[in-house]
Amino acid sequence: MTDSQLKELNDIDQMVCQWLEELMHQARELVQSHVDVQNKDGNARNLVTNVDRENECWLDQKIRTFNPHAKIISEEGFGDHLVDMDGDVWFVDPIDGTMNFVHEHTDFAIMVALYRDGKPLLGWIADVMGNDIHHGGPAIGVQINQQKVPATPDVVLSQSILMLSGRCLVAGDYGYKTLAQKALAFRVIGSAGIAFSYLLKGQVNGYVSKLMPWDVAAGRVLAESLGFIVTNLDGQALNMLSSNTVLVATYSTHHEIVTMLKG
Amino acid sequence: MTDSQLKELNDIDQMVCQWLEELMHQARELVQSHVDVQNKDGNARNLVTNVDRENECWLDQKIRTFNPHAKIISEEGFGDHLVDMDGDVWFVDPIDGTMNFVHEHTDFAIMVALYRDGKPLLGWIADVMGNDIHHGGPAIGVQINQQKVPATPDVVLSQSILMLSGRCLVAGDYGYKTLAQKALAFRVIGSAGIAFSYLLKGQVNGYVSKLMPWDVAAGRVLAESLGFIVTNLDGQALNMLSSNTVLVATYSTHHEIVTMLKG
Repeated sequence: MTDSQLKELNDIDQMVCQWLEELMHQARELVQSHVDVQNKDGNARNLVTNVDRENECWLDQKIRTFNPHAKIISEEGFGDHLVDMDGDVWFVDPIDGTMNFVHEHTDFAIMVALYRDGKPLLGWIADVMGNDIHHGGPAIGVQINQQKVPATPDVVLSQSILMLSGRCLVAGDYGYKTLAQKALAFRVIGSAGIAFSYLLKGQVNGYVSKLMPWDVAAGRVLAESLGFIVTNLDGQALNMLSSNTVLVATYSTHHEIVTMLKG
Repeated sequence: MTDSQLKELNDIDQMVCQWLEELMHQARELVQSHVDVQNKDGNARNLVTNVDRENECWLDQKIRTFNPHAKIISEEGFGDHLVDMDGDVWFVDPIDGTMNFVHEHTDFAIMVALYRDGKPLLGWIADVMGNDIHHGGPAIGVQINQQKVPATPDVVLSQSILMLSGRCLVAGDYGYKTLAQKALAFRVIGSAGIAFSYLLKGQVNGYVSKLMPWDVAAGRVLAESLGFIVTNLDGQALNMLSSNTVLVATYSTHHEIVTMLKG
């Protein structure tokens, strides 16, 4: 990568960090005030708020102002409908963990990612109440705020703490119960962004959940940059245009899980 | 309660808060350094460290210096073997969530409680990495650090987020799967103290886990002071001298759960 390419990435990284600082500040003010909550499909577990919509609208506009040719995949309908990953594709999750935002007032995130011709380039996860921005990518490394994050040590499954989707576990989705039993321990936190934050900080060693593209795009960029393997539960590459059952783990744990669940 | 009785409680409250400030500071220094970890019974999921032992020894000595007649129930063997709850009984959990302390470096707590003739009097939960001390009791109210905590609003089960023991859920213990399905959502965090912290902050509405006396003693004092109902899963009073499957919930959720699991 040339110096000017690196400079471009660093400039974009800093620009998006500034956007997220602004949104985090707003969201912290809003979390204690009245938020307009709606069930997305008559399902009390699938929530959307005015904050989700306003954040997405604001971020999508910022991206389109920066690059009018950018394509955007985002959760609440302000993005584009894409059929391929050609060119610059941005992913936006305006509030990840909306149930936590509404009910817990903690453990929610704002996420943005940039892919170029299908390749993960940059990712950002803002842990709003923790006031931490996780950002970077394979070329520029990963930082939490200003602090460089080291590569993940390799850990085997029996010594791994896994983040699992509680909903998938209790629905009996394939593999989850086995993973919950075989891992050293498992945790359920209710937000993909916060699950990735635990991973990036080295607090847990793997994460398995059914995720939409905007739930996984940023976390994938950052986790891969630290040496985590990110695939679907069969060990196949993710399709960034559809939902996937996502497996993120250290090399050894990833290999054990894929082998075990195939066997 | 007389003014002098209230003064006694406030003085004890402040004294123990100071002890915990000191231990929290130490534990934050130790969490990133070398900790001597042992499996308690050849079980990789049941850990004890030198920090557990040293904290307990230190706290038990502080308590005995303050009140040579006090009886102590504590996790790592420096306490007494009690057959009744007569007089002043202290409970000490020197590191709650030892696996999180060792592996995650977050989401662990130090807990102390004081019962008098079987009645919950005062409780303290120090969320070490969050730097929060939850403290108080029925007579003096509950505070997080210097901030008064309001009584819990009543919430029904379908609107409740529950903290559940991941180990009990995946082992198929009676009731857990039903609760995970019927609640709005469930979370697994790996520490009773941190689960109680989420409850006291109003972030979740109930908690179900199999707990030893030192795991539940402080949380029970504080949760009851805010209007939560704390019993075993049958709705019976806890036995503070043995392990219990503990149900902590708002009034309506508690009633629904006990009725549902009996039916």
